[in-house]
Amino acid sequence: MASSPSPPCAEITRYGNSKEEGLLMIDLERVRKSLIRQEDSIVFSLIERAKFPSNSSLYKSSSSSQIPGFDGSLIQYIVKETEILHSKIGRYESPEEHPFFPDGLPLPLIPCPPKSPEFLHGAASSININSTIWKFYLEELLPLFTKQGDDTGSYACTAVCDLSCLQALSRRIHYGKFVAEVKFRDAPEEYGPAIRAQDRDALMKLLTFEDIEEMVKKRVAKKAMIFSQEVNLKEKDADDKQQNCKIDPSLLSRLYGEWVMPLTKLVQVEYLLRRLDK
Amino acid sequence: MASSPSPPCAEITRYGNSKEEGLLMIDLERVRKSLIRQEDSIVFSLIERAKFPSNSSLYKSSSSSQIPGFDGSLIQYIVKETEILHSKIGRYESPEEHPFFPDGLPLPLIPCPPKSPEFLHGAASSININSTIWKFYLEELLPLFTKQGDDTGSYACTAVCDLSCLQALSRRIHYGKFVAEVKFRDAPEEYGPAIRAQDRDALMKLLTFEDIEEMVKKRVAKKAMIFSQEVNLKEKDADDKQQNCKIDPSLLSRLYGEWVMPLTKLVQVEYLLRRLDK
Repeated sequence: MASSPSPPCAEITRYGNSKEEGLLMIDLERVRKSLIRQEDSIVFSLIERAKFPSNSSLYKSSSSSQIPGFDGSLIQYIVKETEILHSKIGRYESPEEHPFFPDGLPLPLIPCPPKSPEFLHGAASSININSTIWKFYLEELLPLFTKQGDDTGSYACTAVCDLSCLQALSRRIHYGKFVAEVKFRDAPEEYGPAIRAQDRDALMKLLTFEDIEEMVKKRVAKKAMIFSQEVNLKEKDADDKQQNCKIDPSLLSRLYGEWVMPLTKLVQVEYLLRRLDK
Repeated sequence: MASSPSPPCAEITRYGNSKEEGLLMIDLERVRKSLIRQEDSIVFSLIERAKFPSNSSLYKSSSSSQIPGFDGSLIQYIVKETEILHSKIGRYESPEEHPFFPDGLPLPLIPCPPKSPEFLHGAASSININSTIWKFYLEELLPLFTKQGDDTGSYACTAVCDLSCLQALSRRIHYGKFVAEVKFRDAPEEYGPAIRAQDRDALMKLLTFEDIEEMVKKRVAKKAMIFSQEVNLKEKDADDKQQNCKIDPSLLSRLYGEWVMPLTKLVQVEYLLRRLDK
Protein backbone atom coordinates (compact mmCIF):
# COMPACT_ATOMS: atom_id res chain seq x y z
CA MET A 1 0.00 0.00 0.00
CA ALA A 2 1.41 3.35 -0.96
CA SER A 3 1.09 6.00 1.72
CA SER A 4 0.49 9.64 1.08
CA PRO A 5 1.68 12.29 3.48
CA SER A 6 -0.78 13.69 5.97
CA PRO A 7 -0.64 14.63 9.64
CA PRO A 8 -0.14 11.35 11.42
CA CYS A 9 -1.05 12.01 14.96
CA ALA A 10 -1.77 14.40 17.75
CA GLU A 11 1.84 14.54 18.86
CA ILE A 12 2.78 16.09 15.59
CA THR A 13 -0.30 17.86 14.30
CA ARG A 14 -0.97 19.82 17.42
CA TYR A 15 2.00 22.03 16.63
CA GLY A 16 0.35 23.17 13.43
CA ASN A 17 -2.88 25.11 13.13
CA SER A 18 -4.11 23.24 10.10
CA LYS A 19 -3.56 19.95 8.36
CA GLU A 20 -1.34 21.71 5.88
CA GLU A 21 0.84 23.25 8.55
CA GLY A 22 1.04 19.95 10.42
CA LEU A 23 2.12 18.30 7.24
CA LEU A 24 4.93 20.72 6.63
CA MET A 25 6.28 20.17 10.10
CA ILE A 26 6.73 16.42 10.02
CA ASP A 27 10.45 16.18 9.74
CA LEU A 28 13.31 14.70 11.63
CA GLU A 29 13.63 17.76 13.85
CA ARG A 30 10.00 17.48 14.96
CA VAL A 31 10.39 13.77 15.61
CA ARG A 32 13.59 14.42 17.56
CA LYS A 33 11.84 17.00 19.74
CA SER A 34 9.02 14.60 20.50
CA LEU A 35 11.49 11.87 21.48
CA ILE A 36 13.28 14.28 23.82
CA ARG A 37 10.00 15.42 25.40
CA GLN A 38 8.97 11.80 25.89
CA GLU A 39 12.15 11.25 27.94
CA ASP A 40 10.75 13.65 30.54
CA SER A 41 7.50 11.68 30.74
CA ILE A 42 9.39 8.42 31.22
CA VAL A 43 11.54 9.89 33.99
CA PHE A 44 8.52 11.44 35.76
CA SER A 45 6.58 8.18 35.61
CA LEU A 46 9.46 6.15 37.06
CA ILE A 47 9.93 8.68 39.87
CA GLU A 48 6.23 8.40 40.69
CA ARG A 49 6.30 4.59 40.68
CA ALA A 50 9.35 4.64 42.97
CA LYS A 51 7.20 6.21 45.73
CA PHE A 52 5.67 2.78 46.31
CA PRO A 53 7.37 -0.44 47.35
CA SER A 54 7.52 -3.43 44.99
CA ASN A 55 3.99 -4.60 45.98
CA SER A 56 4.60 -7.93 44.33
CA SER A 57 1.07 -9.24 45.05
CA LEU A 58 -0.08 -7.03 42.20
CA TYR A 59 1.84 -9.15 39.71
CA LYS A 60 1.05 -12.67 40.89
CA SER A 61 -1.37 -14.54 38.69
CA SER A 62 -2.71 -16.59 41.54
CA SER A 63 -3.03 -14.97 44.88
CA SER A 64 -5.61 -14.19 47.46
CA SER A 65 -5.85 -10.68 46.06
CA GLN A 66 -7.00 -11.92 42.67
CA ILE A 67 -10.20 -10.64 41.10
CA PRO A 68 -12.92 -13.34 41.23
CA GLY A 69 -13.69 -14.65 37.76
CA PHE A 70 -10.65 -13.00 36.17
CA ASP A 71 -7.88 -15.29 35.10
CA GLY A 72 -4.79 -13.19 35.62
CA SER A 73 -2.94 -10.88 37.94
CA LEU A 74 -4.32 -7.69 39.44
CA ILE A 75 -2.09 -5.59 37.20
CA GLN A 76 -3.42 -7.39 34.13
CA TYR A 77 -6.97 -6.73 35.29
CA ILE A 78 -6.37 -3.03 35.85
CA VAL A 79 -4.49 -2.47 32.59
CA LYS A 80 -7.02 -4.45 30.57
CA GLU A 81 -10.03 -2.69 32.06
CA THR A 82 -8.38 0.73 31.68
CA GLU A 83 -7.63 -0.01 28.03
CA ILE A 84 -11.28 -0.98 27.44
CA LEU A 85 -12.35 2.37 28.88
CA HIS A 86 -9.76 4.33 26.89
CA SER A 87 -10.67 2.49 23.71
CA LYS A 88 -14.25 3.70 24.10
CA ILE A 89 -13.02 7.28 23.89
CA GLY A 90 -10.78 6.62 20.93
CA ARG A 91 -7.30 6.33 22.44
CA TYR A 92 -6.22 3.57 20.06
CA GLU A 93 -7.40 5.41 16.96
CA SER A 94 -4.13 7.34 17.24
CA PRO A 95 -1.15 5.66 15.56
CA GLU A 96 0.96 6.72 18.56
CA GLU A 97 -0.97 4.55 21.02
CA HIS A 98 -0.69 0.78 21.36
CA PRO A 99 -2.75 -1.33 23.76
CA PHE A 100 -1.16 -4.05 25.89
CA PHE A 101 -4.29 -6.20 25.55
CA PRO A 102 -5.49 -5.52 22.00
CA ASP A 103 -7.86 -8.49 21.70
CA GLY A 104 -11.53 -7.60 21.78
CA LEU A 105 -11.20 -3.91 22.54
CA PRO A 106 -14.47 -2.04 21.98
CA LEU A 107 -14.89 0.50 19.21
CA PRO A 108 -14.99 4.18 20.18
CA LEU A 109 -18.36 5.37 21.49
CA ILE A 110 -17.73 8.89 20.23
CA PRO A 111 -17.15 10.08 16.69
CA CYS A 112 -13.42 10.13 16.02
CA PRO A 113 -11.78 12.53 13.58
CA PRO A 114 -12.20 11.29 10.01
CA LYS A 115 -9.26 9.16 8.99
CA SER A 116 -7.05 11.10 6.65
CA PRO A 117 -4.59 9.19 4.50
CA GLU A 118 -2.03 7.88 6.95
CA PHE A 119 1.44 9.34 7.33
CA LEU A 120 2.73 5.87 8.11
CA HIS A 121 2.67 2.93 5.74
CA GLY A 122 -0.34 0.67 6.30
CA ALA A 123 1.87 -2.09 7.72
CA ALA A 124 2.48 0.07 10.80
CA SER A 125 -0.72 -1.03 12.46
CA SER A 126 0.41 -4.64 12.56
CA ILE A 127 3.49 -3.82 14.64
CA ASN A 128 2.92 -3.95 18.40
CA ILE A 129 5.75 -5.17 20.65
CA ASN A 130 3.98 -4.40 23.93
CA SER A 131 4.27 -8.00 25.12
CA THR A 132 8.06 -7.55 25.11
CA ILE A 133 7.77 -4.18 26.87
CA TRP A 134 5.42 -5.68 29.49
CA LYS A 135 7.87 -8.47 30.21
CA PHE A 136 11.02 -6.36 30.55
CA TYR A 137 9.21 -3.72 32.60
CA LEU A 138 7.72 -6.13 35.13
CA GLU A 139 10.47 -8.71 35.29
CA GLU A 140 13.63 -6.71 34.81
CA LEU A 141 13.15 -2.99 35.29
CA LEU A 142 10.73 -2.83 38.23
CA PRO A 143 12.97 -4.74 40.67
CA LEU A 144 15.80 -2.32 39.85
CA PHE A 145 14.08 0.81 41.14
CA THR A 146 11.50 -0.25 43.73
CA LYS A 147 12.19 -1.22 47.32
CA GLN A 148 11.08 -4.68 48.39
CA GLY A 149 7.90 -4.46 50.39
CA ASP A 150 4.13 -4.52 50.36
CA ASP A 151 1.92 -1.72 51.61
CA THR A 152 -1.39 -3.45 50.73
CA GLY A 153 -3.40 -0.22 50.95
CA SER A 154 -2.13 1.31 47.70
CA TYR A 155 -2.37 -1.35 45.02
CA ALA A 156 -4.60 0.81 42.86
CA CYS A 157 -2.24 3.80 43.02
CA THR A 158 0.76 1.56 42.38
CA ALA A 159 -0.92 -0.01 39.36
CA VAL A 160 -1.82 3.42 37.97
CA CYS A 161 1.87 4.36 38.19
CA ASP A 162 2.86 1.10 36.49
CA LEU A 163 0.43 1.76 33.68
CA SER A 164 1.78 5.26 33.28
CA CYS A 165 5.37 3.88 33.00
CA LEU A 166 4.26 1.17 30.57
CA GLN A 167 2.38 3.61 28.36
CA ALA A 168 5.24 6.13 28.31
CA LEU A 169 7.72 3.38 27.36
CA SER A 170 5.36 1.91 24.77
CA ARG A 171 4.75 5.31 23.16
CA ARG A 172 8.49 6.06 23.02
CA ILE A 173 9.44 2.68 21.60
CA HIS A 174 6.68 2.52 18.99
CA TYR A 175 7.52 6.06 17.97
CA GLY A 176 10.21 4.23 16.03
CA LYS A 177 7.60 3.91 13.28
CA PHE A 178 7.62 7.69 12.77
CA VAL A 179 11.40 7.84 13.05
CA ALA A 180 11.72 5.15 10.38
CA GLU A 181 9.18 6.75 8.06
CA VAL A 182 10.86 10.16 8.24
CA LYS A 183 14.29 8.63 7.70
CA PHE A 184 13.01 6.59 4.76
CA ARG A 185 11.42 9.64 3.12
CA ASP A 186 14.61 11.58 3.59
CA ALA A 187 16.74 8.96 1.85
CA PRO A 188 14.73 6.20 0.13
CA GLU A 189 17.73 5.29 -2.00
CA GLU A 190 19.70 4.49 1.13
CA TYR A 191 17.13 2.12 2.64
CA GLY A 192 15.63 0.64 -0.55
CA PRO A 193 18.29 -2.03 -1.28
CA ALA A 194 18.29 -3.41 2.28
CA ILE A 195 14.48 -3.45 2.33
CA ARG A 196 14.26 -5.27 -0.99
CA ALA A 197 16.85 -7.77 0.24
CA GLN A 198 14.89 -8.05 3.54
CA ASP A 199 18.26 -7.64 5.24
CA ARG A 200 17.66 -6.96 8.94
CA ASP A 201 21.32 -6.59 9.78
CA ALA A 202 21.91 -4.01 7.07
CA LEU A 203 18.89 -2.03 8.23
CA MET A 204 20.00 -2.20 11.85
CA LYS A 205 23.40 -0.91 10.78
CA LEU A 206 21.85 2.00 8.86
CA LEU A 207 19.81 2.92 11.95
CA THR A 208 22.61 2.76 14.49
CA PHE A 209 24.55 5.87 15.51
CA GLU A 210 26.61 5.00 18.54
CA ASP A 211 27.67 8.53 19.38
CA ILE A 212 24.07 9.73 19.41
CA GLU A 213 23.01 6.78 21.56
CA GLU A 214 25.74 7.62 24.08
CA MET A 215 24.56 11.22 24.17
CA VAL A 216 20.95 10.14 24.77
CA LYS A 217 22.05 7.87 27.63
CA LYS A 218 23.90 10.77 29.25
CA ARG A 219 20.96 13.12 28.78
CA VAL A 220 18.38 10.81 30.35
CA ALA A 221 20.69 10.21 33.31
CA LYS A 222 21.00 13.98 33.73
CA LYS A 223 17.23 14.31 33.57
CA ALA A 224 16.82 11.66 36.27
CA MET A 225 19.25 13.56 38.47
CA ILE A 226 17.57 16.93 37.92
CA PHE A 227 13.94 15.79 38.10
CA SER A 228 14.34 13.46 41.06
CA GLN A 229 16.41 15.73 43.30
CA GLU A 230 15.15 16.99 46.64
CA VAL A 231 14.48 20.65 45.94
CA ASN A 232 14.80 23.10 48.75
CA LEU A 233 15.30 26.83 48.87
CA LYS A 234 18.98 26.67 49.76
CA GLU A 235 21.48 26.40 46.92
CA LYS A 236 23.40 23.16 46.90
CA ASP A 237 26.28 21.62 45.06
CA ALA A 238 26.27 18.89 42.44
CA ASP A 239 27.24 16.15 44.93
CA ASP A 240 24.21 16.93 47.04
CA LYS A 241 21.95 16.66 44.03
CA GLN A 242 23.35 13.28 43.13
CA GLN A 243 23.04 11.90 46.65
CA ASN A 244 19.41 12.75 47.18
CA CYS A 245 18.00 11.38 43.95
CA LYS A 246 14.69 9.56 44.20
CA ILE A 247 15.77 7.47 41.26
CA ASP A 248 19.28 6.37 40.32
CA PRO A 249 20.42 8.33 37.23
CA SER A 250 22.42 5.34 36.00
CA LEU A 251 19.18 3.33 35.86
CA LEU A 252 17.94 5.65 33.12
CA SER A 253 21.13 5.20 31.08
CA ARG A 254 20.72 1.48 31.42
CA LEU A 255 17.01 1.55 30.58
CA TYR A 256 17.75 3.45 27.39
CA GLY A 257 20.91 1.52 26.48
CA GLU A 258 19.54 -1.97 27.10
CA TRP A 259 15.84 -1.62 26.31
CA VAL A 260 14.43 1.63 24.95
CA MET A 261 16.88 2.26 22.11
CA PRO A 262 17.32 -1.38 21.01
CA LEU A 263 13.54 -1.91 21.03
CA THR A 264 12.93 1.35 19.14
CA LYS A 265 15.37 0.12 16.50
CA LEU A 266 13.59 -3.22 16.41
CA VAL A 267 10.33 -1.36 15.68
CA GLN A 268 12.11 0.66 12.98
CA VAL A 269 13.50 -2.48 11.35
CA GLU A 270 10.11 -4.26 11.47
CA TYR A 271 8.51 -1.21 9.91
CA LEU A 272 11.09 -0.73 7.18
CA LEU A 273 11.01 -4.41 6.22
CA ARG A 274 7.38 -3.84 5.21
CA ARG A 275 7.78 -0.28 3.96
CA LEU A 276 7.73 -1.23 0.29
CA ASP A 277 4.88 -3.77 0.54
CA LYS A 278 2.07 -3.04 -1.89
CA MET B 1 -16.21 8.76 68.55
CA ALA B 2 -12.83 8.55 70.16
CA SER B 3 -10.05 7.48 67.84
CA SER B 4 -7.15 5.35 68.87
CA PRO B 5 -3.79 5.68 67.19
CA SER B 6 -2.97 3.27 64.40
CA PRO B 7 -1.30 3.50 61.02
CA PRO B 8 -3.68 5.55 58.93
CA CYS B 9 -2.63 4.93 55.41
CA ALA B 10 -0.18 3.68 52.90
CA GLU B 11 1.59 7.01 52.64
CA ILE B 12 2.60 6.72 56.24
CA THR B 13 2.72 3.05 57.06
CA ARG B 14 4.90 2.07 54.18
CA TYR B 15 7.83 3.69 55.93
CA GLY B 16 7.48 1.29 58.82
CA ASN B 17 7.91 -2.46 58.66
CA SER B 18 5.09 -3.18 61.04
CA LYS B 19 2.01 -1.54 62.38
CA GLU B 20 3.90 -0.63 65.52
CA GLU B 21 6.71 1.03 63.60
CA GLY B 22 4.25 2.83 61.36
CA LEU B 23 2.51 4.08 64.46
CA LEU B 24 5.67 5.50 65.95
CA MET B 25 6.43 7.44 62.81
CA ILE B 26 3.23 9.41 62.49
CA ASP B 27 4.37 12.81 63.52
CA LEU B 28 4.51 16.27 62.09
CA GLU B 29 7.87 15.60 60.47
CA ARG B 30 6.49 12.62 58.56
CA VAL B 31 3.42 14.56 57.48
CA ARG B 32 5.63 17.46 56.37
CA LYS B 33 7.77 15.12 54.24
CA SER B 34 4.70 13.67 52.59
CA LEU B 35 3.38 17.14 51.77
CA ILE B 36 6.72 18.10 50.23
CA ARG B 37 6.84 14.90 48.17
CA GLN B 38 3.30 15.52 46.97
CA GLU B 39 4.43 18.88 45.58
CA ASP B 40 6.62 17.00 43.10
CA SER B 41 3.65 14.90 41.95
CA ILE B 42 1.53 18.00 41.44
CA VAL B 43 4.26 19.73 39.42
CA PHE B 44 4.88 16.61 37.28
CA SER B 45 1.20 16.16 36.57
CA LEU B 46 0.74 19.80 35.48
CA ILE B 47 3.80 19.59 33.21
CA GLU B 48 2.33 16.47 31.60
CA ARG B 49 -1.09 18.09 31.10
CA ALA B 50 0.59 21.14 29.53
CA LYS B 51 1.77 18.93 26.64
CA PHE B 52 -1.77 19.04 25.27
CA PRO B 53 -3.83 22.03 24.17
CA SER B 54 -6.96 23.05 26.07
CA ASN B 55 -9.13 20.48 24.21
CA SER B 56 -12.27 22.16 25.48
CA SER B 57 -14.61 19.60 23.85
CA LEU B 58 -13.65 17.27 26.68
CA TYR B 59 -15.36 19.51 29.20
CA LYS B 60 -18.59 20.40 27.41
CA SER B 61 -21.66 18.68 28.75
CA SER B 62 -23.41 18.71 25.42
CA SER B 63 -21.35 18.20 22.34
CA SER B 64 -21.06 15.91 19.41
CA SER B 65 -18.27 14.09 21.22
CA GLN B 66 -20.55 13.09 24.08
CA ILE B 67 -20.93 9.45 25.10
CA PRO B 68 -24.34 8.10 24.02
CA GLY B 69 -26.55 7.47 27.04
CA PHE B 70 -24.27 9.32 29.45
CA ASP B 71 -25.53 12.60 30.76
CA GLY B 72 -22.38 14.62 31.19
CA SER B 73 -19.10 15.66 29.66
CA LEU B 74 -16.42 13.32 28.36
CA ILE B 75 -14.15 14.18 31.30
CA GLN B 76 -16.93 13.27 33.74
CA TYR B 77 -17.41 9.97 31.95
CA ILE B 78 -13.74 9.08 32.05
CA VAL B 79 -13.20 10.11 35.68
CA LYS B 80 -16.39 8.34 36.83
CA GLU B 81 -15.60 5.10 35.00
CA THR B 82 -11.99 5.15 36.19
CA GLU B 83 -13.14 5.62 39.78
CA ILE B 84 -15.51 2.65 39.44
CA LEU B 85 -12.57 0.51 38.29
CA HIS B 86 -10.26 1.78 41.02
CA SER B 87 -12.94 1.27 43.65
CA LYS B 88 -13.10 -2.41 42.69
CA ILE B 89 -9.46 -2.78 43.65
CA GLY B 90 -9.83 -0.90 46.90
CA ARG B 91 -8.48 2.57 46.14
CA TYR B 92 -11.06 4.34 48.28
CA GLU B 93 -10.50 2.11 51.29
CA SER B 94 -7.48 4.31 51.96
CA PRO B 95 -8.24 7.46 53.98
CA GLU B 96 -5.86 9.35 51.68
CA GLU B 97 -8.02 8.82 48.59
CA HIS B 98 -11.25 10.67 47.80
CA PRO B 99 -13.41 9.99 44.75
CA PHE B 100 -14.82 12.83 42.65
CA PHE B 101 -18.00 10.82 42.02
CA PRO B 102 -18.58 8.97 45.29
CA ASP B 103 -22.22 8.00 44.67
CA GLY B 104 -22.77 4.34 43.95
CA LEU B 105 -19.14 3.24 43.79
CA PRO B 106 -18.81 -0.56 43.90
CA LEU B 107 -17.26 -2.35 46.84
CA PRO B 108 -13.77 -3.80 46.40
CA LEU B 109 -13.68 -7.14 44.59
CA ILE B 110 -10.54 -8.18 46.42
CA PRO B 111 -9.99 -8.63 50.12
CA CYS B 112 -8.68 -5.38 51.57
CA PRO B 113 -6.43 -5.21 54.62
CA PRO B 114 -8.48 -5.58 57.79
CA LYS B 115 -9.55 -2.20 59.08
CA SER B 116 -7.48 -1.31 62.09
CA PRO B 117 -8.75 1.40 64.40
CA GLU B 118 -8.41 4.58 62.39
CA PHE B 119 -5.70 7.15 62.99
CA LEU B 120 -8.18 9.84 62.03
CA HIS B 121 -11.36 10.67 63.90
CA GLY B 122 -14.40 8.96 62.42
CA ALA B 123 -15.76 12.26 61.12
CA ALA B 124 -12.94 12.37 58.57
CA SER B 125 -14.76 10.14 56.14
CA SER B 126 -17.58 12.66 55.79
CA ILE B 127 -15.25 15.39 54.54
CA ASN B 128 -14.78 15.45 50.77
CA ILE B 129 -14.34 18.81 49.02
CA ASN B 130 -13.61 17.35 45.59
CA SER B 131 -16.50 19.22 43.99
CA THR B 132 -14.68 22.47 44.86
CA ILE B 133 -11.38 21.07 43.55
CA TRP B 134 -13.05 19.92 40.33
CA LYS B 135 -14.50 23.38 39.75
CA PHE B 136 -11.35 25.40 40.37
CA TYR B 137 -9.21 22.98 38.38
CA LEU B 138 -11.40 22.96 35.30
CA GLU B 139 -12.66 26.54 35.35
CA GLU B 140 -9.78 28.50 36.76
CA LEU B 141 -6.51 26.61 36.71
CA LEU B 142 -6.65 24.78 33.38
CA PRO B 143 -7.01 27.92 31.22
CA LEU B 144 -3.93 29.37 32.94
CA PHE B 145 -1.48 26.72 31.77
CA THR B 146 -2.86 25.18 28.57
CA LYS B 147 -2.73 26.69 25.11
CA GLN B 148 -6.04 27.26 23.36
CA GLY B 149 -6.61 24.56 20.79
CA ASP B 150 -8.08 21.18 20.02
CA ASP B 151 -6.12 18.22 18.73
CA THR B 152 -9.12 15.80 18.66
CA GLY B 153 -6.90 12.71 18.47
CA SER B 154 -5.74 12.79 22.07
CA TYR B 155 -8.78 13.29 24.25
CA ALA B 156 -8.13 10.09 26.18
CA CYS B 157 -4.52 11.02 26.93
CA THR B 158 -5.55 14.56 27.86
CA ALA B 159 -8.24 13.26 30.21
CA VAL B 160 -5.77 10.86 31.85
CA CYS B 161 -3.48 13.83 32.54
CA ASP B 162 -6.41 15.82 33.96
CA LEU B 163 -7.32 12.96 36.24
CA SER B 164 -3.74 12.71 37.41
CA CYS B 165 -3.70 16.46 38.24
CA LEU B 166 -7.08 16.25 39.97
CA GLN B 167 -6.05 13.24 42.06
CA ALA B 168 -2.72 14.78 43.07
CA LEU B 169 -4.45 18.01 44.12
CA SER B 170 -7.21 16.13 45.93
CA ARG B 171 -4.72 13.99 47.82
CA ARG B 172 -2.68 17.04 48.85
CA ILE B 173 -5.66 19.08 49.95
CA HIS B 174 -7.41 16.28 51.88
CA TYR B 175 -4.12 15.46 53.54
CA GLY B 176 -5.16 18.36 55.72
CA LYS B 177 -7.02 15.77 57.79
CA PHE B 178 -3.71 14.17 58.80
CA VAL B 179 -2.08 17.56 59.35
CA ALA B 180 -4.96 18.59 61.62
CA GLU B 181 -4.96 15.31 63.56
CA VAL B 182 -1.23 15.46 64.21
CA LYS B 183 -1.43 19.11 65.26
CA PHE B 184 -4.37 18.38 67.53
CA ARG B 185 -2.58 15.49 69.21
CA ASP B 186 0.51 17.62 69.70
CA ALA B 187 -1.44 20.39 71.47
CA PRO B 188 -5.04 19.46 72.32
CA GLU B 189 -5.19 22.24 74.88
CA GLU B 190 -4.52 24.78 72.16
CA TYR B 191 -7.30 23.63 69.83
CA GLY B 192 -9.87 22.44 72.39
CA PRO B 193 -11.43 25.83 73.29
CA ALA B 194 -11.94 26.88 69.63
CA ILE B 195 -13.39 23.46 68.78
CA ARG B 196 -15.82 23.53 71.70
CA ALA B 197 -16.82 27.07 70.71
CA GLN B 198 -17.13 25.88 67.05
CA ASP B 199 -15.13 28.99 66.20
CA ARG B 200 -13.97 28.68 62.59
CA ASP B 201 -12.07 31.94 62.60
CA ALA B 202 -10.10 31.05 65.69
CA LEU B 203 -9.21 27.67 64.22
CA MET B 204 -8.16 29.24 60.93
CA LYS B 205 -5.93 31.63 62.85
CA LEU B 206 -4.31 28.78 64.78
CA LEU B 207 -3.59 26.98 61.50
CA THR B 208 -2.15 29.94 59.60
CA PHE B 209 1.59 30.55 59.47
CA GLU B 210 2.23 33.18 56.84
CA ASP B 211 5.99 32.82 56.74
CA ILE B 212 5.72 29.08 56.14
CA GLU B 213 3.13 29.64 53.43
CA GLU B 214 5.45 32.10 51.67
CA MET B 215 8.27 29.57 51.84
CA VAL B 216 6.06 26.84 50.34
CA LYS B 217 5.04 29.15 47.49
CA LYS B 218 8.70 29.85 46.72
CA ARG B 219 9.60 26.18 46.88
CA VAL B 220 6.88 25.01 44.49
CA ALA B 221 7.83 27.76 42.03
CA LYS B 222 11.44 26.56 42.22
CA LYS B 223 10.29 22.99 41.62
CA ALA B 224 8.31 24.08 38.55
CA MET B 225 11.42 25.80 37.20
CA ILE B 226 13.69 22.84 37.84
CA PHE B 227 11.35 20.06 36.75
CA SER B 228 10.02 21.77 33.64
CA GLN B 229 13.32 23.02 32.21
CA GLU B 230 14.68 21.83 28.90
CA VAL B 231 17.59 19.64 29.96
CA ASN B 232 20.53 19.32 27.64
CA LEU B 233 24.10 18.26 28.13
CA LYS B 234 25.52 21.76 28.03
CA GLU B 235 25.63 23.75 31.24
CA LYS B 236 23.41 26.79 31.21
CA ASP B 237 22.72 29.77 33.39
CA ALA B 238 19.69 30.51 35.54
CA ASP B 239 18.11 32.84 32.95
CA ASP B 240 18.12 30.06 30.38
CA LYS B 241 16.40 27.73 32.81
CA GLN B 242 13.69 30.24 33.51
CA GLN B 243 13.04 31.02 29.85
CA ASN B 244 12.55 27.49 28.69
CA CYS B 245 10.12 26.32 31.34
CA LYS B 246 7.29 24.09 30.15
CA ILE B 247 5.19 25.53 32.93
CA ASP B 248 5.32 29.01 34.42
CA PRO B 249 6.85 28.83 37.92
CA SER B 250 4.65 31.68 39.12
CA LEU B 251 1.59 29.56 38.30
CA LEU B 252 2.65 27.11 41.00
CA SER B 253 3.01 29.89 43.58
CA ARG B 254 -0.44 31.10 42.67
CA LEU B 255 -1.95 27.60 42.70
CA TYR B 256 -0.63 27.05 46.22
CA GLY B 257 -1.37 30.57 47.48
CA GLU B 258 -4.91 30.84 46.12
CA TRP B 259 -6.15 27.26 46.16
CA VAL B 260 -4.03 24.46 47.62
CA MET B 261 -3.14 26.03 50.96
CA PRO B 262 -6.50 27.75 51.62
CA LEU B 263 -8.39 24.56 50.73
CA THR B 264 -6.08 22.44 52.90
CA LYS B 265 -6.82 24.77 55.79
CA LEU B 266 -10.53 24.50 55.03
CA VAL B 267 -10.23 20.70 55.31
CA GLN B 268 -8.32 21.12 58.57
CA VAL B 269 -10.97 23.42 60.00
CA GLU B 270 -13.82 21.11 58.93
CA TYR B 271 -12.02 18.20 60.53
CA LEU B 272 -11.17 19.97 63.77
CA LEU B 273 -14.74 21.27 64.18
CA ARG B 274 -15.81 17.60 64.46
CA ARG B 275 -12.70 16.34 66.23
CA LEU B 276 -14.34 16.18 69.65
CA ASP B 277 -17.65 14.69 68.47
CA LYS B 278 -18.58 11.51 70.35
